[in-house]
Order: sequence, then C-alpha cells, then structure tokens
Amino acid sequence: MTPLDLPQPYLVFLGDVTEVAYAKTAAGLRDWAPDQCVGEYGLPKGDFTLGLPVLSPAEAYEKGARAVVIGVAPMGGGLNNGWVAPLVEALEAGLDIISGMHAPLAGVPALKETAERLGRRLIDVRRPPAGLPIANGKKRAGKRLLTVGTDCALGKKYTALAIAEAFRKRGVATDFRATGQTGVIIAGGGIPMDSVVADFLAGAAEVLSPDAAPDHWDIVEGQGSLFHPAYAGVSLGLLHGSQPDVLVVCHQIGRDHVLGMGETYPLPSVEETIEINLYHARRVNREARCAGISLNTASLDDEAAAKAIAEYSERTGLPCADPIRGGAAFARLVDSCLNP
Amino acid sequence: MTPLDLPQPYLVFLGDVTEVAYAKTAAGLRDWAPDQCVGEYGLPKGDFTLGLPVLSPAEAYEKGARAVVIGVAPMGGGLNNGWVAPLVEALEAGLDIISGMHAPLAGVPALKETAERLGRRLIDVRRPPAGLPIANGKKRAGKRLLTVGTDCALGKKYTALAIAEAFRKRGVATDFRATGQTGVIIAGGGIPMDSVVADFLAGAAEVLSPDAAPDHWDIVEGQGSLFHPAYAGVSLGLLHGSQPDVLVVCHQIGRDHVLGMGETYPLPSVEETIEINLYHARRVNREARCAGISLNTASLDDEAAAKAIAEYSERTGLPCADPIRGGAAFARLVDSCLNP
Repeated sequence: MTPLDLPQPYLVFLGDVTEVAYAKTAAGLRDWAPDQCVGEYGLPKGDFTLGLPVLSPAEAYEKGARAVVIGVAPMGGGLNNGWVAPLVEALEAGLDIISGMHAPLAGVPALKETAERLGRRLIDVRRPPAGLPIANGKKRAGKRLLTVGTDCALGKKYTALAIAEAFRKRGVATDFRATGQTGVIIAGGGIPMDSVVADFLAGAAEVLSPDAAPDHWDIVEGQGSLFHPAYAGVSLGLLHGSQPDVLVVCHQIGRDHVLGMGETYPLPSVEETIEINLYHARRVNREARCAGISLNTASLDDEAAAKAIAEYSERTGLPCADPIRGGAAFARLVDSCLNP
Repeated sequence: MTPLDLPQPYLVFLGDVTEVAYAKTAAGLRDWAPDQCVGEYGLPKGDFTLGLPVLSPAEAYEKGARAVVIGVAPMGGGLNNGWVAPLVEALEAGLDIISGMHAPLAGVPALKETAERLGRRLIDVRRPPAGLPIANGKKRAGKRLLTVGTDCALGKKYTALAIAEAFRKRGVATDFRATGQTGVIIAGGGIPMDSVVADFLAGAAEVLSPDAAPDHWDIVEGQGSLFHPAYAGVSLGLLHGSQPDVLVVCHQIGRDHVLGMGETYPLPSVEETIEINLYHARRVNREARCAGISLNTASLDDEAAAKAIAEYSERTGLPCADPIRGGAAFARLVDSCLNP
C-alpha cells in the first residue's frame, strides 16, 4: 500500500471559468507547483488565466505533460457537458485525467470509453488508495510537523506548504504530505483523509508519513479541527497517525464560530487549541510540542495585521506569523519549528 | 437515509463451530435477543448449541423466521466452503442472509446467483447505509447515553445492552443504538461506525439517534476509545454526533495497556477517561455528565470483584458496577443514569 502517486507534469484545465473563486486548485498549482505545470487549457467562454502558456493537449504532451488536471470546481460538483469533448481530446493526445470532483470521472461514458480504448487513466483524487492498514501505533524514524486549526478552511494547507518551502530553502530534506484533494494534486500524491473508511484513518496517516532518515521532515497538511462537530474524528485520526513532533496552530483573525454552522459553535481560543492538540499528540509522541501560530490576516491591512501577530505572540509566548505576509515573523516561526 | 433495518426474526446459523469463542454473535443473540431467534441450524460436525430448537430453514420459515444469521466467525474471516450448500438451502426456503463477516456475501457465486434468482437479500452488516450526511451539529430532542471506555473490547456493547434492558424494565422508553456489526445484528438495525467514510462519522451518529420524545432514551453502543492510536477518530466522531447527555465509562480490571499493541500504550486512568470524554462531549452538549463506571470484573472471584467495585466507586465518587454481576450496585448505576 502506498499513497496516491499522480502522473506529472500537468496541463491545467480551466473549463469556462471566469473567476478565481472557482479555480482554487488551479491557483494552488500556480502558486505551489509551477514547475509541474507546462501550460493551461480553457474553453473560449472562460476568461480566467493562470498566466501559463496556453497549449492544446497535443502541444502539452509534446512539452512533457502526462496528465490534464481539472483545476476548477464546476457549479454543482459535476462535470459540465461542454467539458467532455476537450477532455476526450486530452485523452486522445496521450494525457491521463486527474479530478478532485465528488462525481467519479468514469461516470461520464465518453471519458470511460475513451480511456479504456486508449489505456489512459481516470484518476479521482478523492478516492483513497485500496488496502489501507489499521494503525499499528509504532514509532517511526524521521521528524513530522502537522498543521492543526481552531476550525476548518482557514489556512492549514497553505501554512504546511509555506513551511515545507521554507524548510527546503534552508536545505532541510522535506516532504509535503497532502491529506486533501487540492493538496494531493499540488503534491502529485497523498491521501484524501476525509474519504478514508473510519477504521483506517490513523493507519492512512501512518502510511502517509513513513519511516524516514532521522533528519528528514514530513510536513503534514492538517484537516478539520478537534472542535469541529462534523470533522473532529478525521482530525484526531490524522493527529494520532502522524505522530507529530511539532504542531503549528492555524487561526483566522475574525473567525469566531465554526464555519457553516451558524452561531451554535464558538471557536476555542488558540491557547485551548494548543492544549488539547498537544494532549492528544502526546499520546503517540511524548516529545510533541507547539512551535507557534499561523495567523490568517487576509482581512486586515498591514498595520492591523502586524499588531494582531504581535498580540498573539505576546499572549502565547510563541512565534506567530502570517505565512502569506512572510517576513521576519515567519522566519522566526520556521526557526521555532526546526529548533526547540 | 435511515440506519440498517434487518428482517427478523432469525434462524441462527452455527456452521461447524465447536467453541463459543467462535460464536460470539450467536451467543449475543441468545443473551440479548432471544425473542428474535426462532431456532438454530448447524452442520453435523459442529457440536456447539445455543439451546434453541434445532430447525431446518423450511421449518424456521414456517415458524416466522425471515432471515438466517451467520452467528459464527469463520477462521480467516471468509465463508467456509461447507457452509455454501446450507445457506443456499436457507435462501430457497425463503430466508434472507445476514452476515457480519468482512468478505461480502455476494462474493460467493452460488449465494449471489440464488439470491438474485429468488429475490432474496444478502445483507452485509459491516456495510454502512448509503447517503449518510455530513453532521449538522444541531441539538436534537430526547435523551442520549453513550458508553465510552479506557480501551476497545472491554464491555461497551454489553454495558449499553444491560442499561437499555434495565431502563425498559423501569418503564422508560428506550432504544439500544448499535454501532458495530454484532450490536447491529442483535438490535436488528444500526450503523457499523468503523465502516463509515471518515467525513460522515459524526453525521452517521446523528442519523443513528434521531430527534425523539423528550423523555425517550437512546442508549448508544460506544466504539474504541479516545486513547486508542488506531480507533480514536471513530470514538470522537461518535461522541460528537451522539450529543450524549450521559456517559458511562467502561473499564476492565487488569487491563493495563491498549489491547494488541504490546506494552507501548498504557491505558489512561478511569478519572482521565472521564475528564477527556466529558471535555469533548460538552462541545456538543453542555449538560453532558458522567453517571458512573461499568467495571468488567470477569477475571475476579465474587469477593475480589465486590472490593474492586467499591474501590472504584470511592475513588471517583460515582456509582460503579459490573453489569454482568448486576445487583444493588448496578441498580445504583442505572439510578444515576436516569437522575443526576
């Protein structure tokens, strides 16, 4: 059993999207895996661009592409009819198709038939690999960092990617370990934890960050939160299976309640989030520590952001930074991750 | 979406089993659902008996049986070849087949063909119902009790069944809510939580114990433990989705380490188990409380058991009982569940 392993590099399919809000995977690829994207490919109606070379599937294959990635989220979650012909063209040009959509690619007859006829792969990254084991709880060699949060959808993936990049720039052997469909597409592999059968949650996390050299770091993308009434089980399974040495706690300024549940569930404080995540992490790794706080300050101007970052750092006694803003604060957070 | 709903009453199939250790589901049915078992049915080689009338499938159907339950765990987890002909006979007699095995019944060609030809159902209770929702976290009416534990496999199902029976004897409207395959077969319905896709864990628990009358109790069978390196995610999803008003903490005397993981993981104390379970339960139900302790004292003689029960009760200030031993201690535990 190994995590998903995707064919790269990619041609990024943009469909007929006109706004970045529907092209999050595409934007993530541009930001975090530009070397793995040979070009982009859209329909005439769409006017959104990543700024990559516009290539036909055949041209992309010539330039080395091995898969077309559906980098956009269609309205309704399914594939638009108008996308079928250009995706069939991609299969005919020699490319596999990679999708993060809920609906399986093989549910579209034209794609299924063409892929079978030509021996291409239709890869749904929401589908976890087969044969995942029950966790064994055995200590693994190498170092692991996990991003955790006060809530879902506030920067755990971005923070993990930014820390992995910073580690690499410092010459540290590092792998980003993706746990959600966008992360898996960016990384070219990983396991979509929310799609794993519950019995195998921690086992999947163990497989995702296997034994490694003592000075190697796995930076594991967090999912959900221990406080989320719908997703906490995923978060705890991932926390146990990852056996993290280091936690980075992610929070978004202004987020007061669990997203999507009205005002029923107030968020915990960052301090409480640290405490309860460390409590559970130490069940599997007695040395687990929190290295600092990643603060999503997208809603603030520069001055207010700097003030908020300083406040959280003073309150908790830990480095705090917004990875998107980077700078000296982020360098201190990275220092703290590497050196207790 | 509704939980599984099994055809009853049952004819219990015992295969060629010779020891109760391989017939746990059958023994559970005898102990907890005798009214739902019209008879038993075994092969000549087997000499294990539940003491029920020995009936052929045709005789069982005559007496009202609507399904044959595979009440034994075959070596290796798959179906023995010698069992196929008697199970085909059951289908031909008008019975559906219910199995808690890992391998799906439809994987046996003779069963699949016969069931399709006759319109019978092959029901794998490890397979969760389709269409489970993401949890919505909304407070539901009615009362809920969840059994939790210091570890897995130490009496959470038995405790829940015993409390449900005691509630019913006191005239309290009660449903036992099964979360594992044996419990589902005993109850004739439920959801096997460990087989649910992780994203839907808490949502499955919400569906399992729906809105009910204010004085109605759901007694929910616990799974795993928050301290178990493989199964804690299931436990937390079940805890959140169940929104329990009352927890009963289960422990086995002499169990010092997590089962099946050597000596790597010492068990938490009962006090710590209460604390951390209440912490997470109060995220979804501020009124959650621990009503007492269910102590598995099977390894002790009567005197030692009584002493252990008294010790745990004194240490924690909570009622403590072994439901298998029952008596005044168990009555006090049941009192405490019903009345804060």
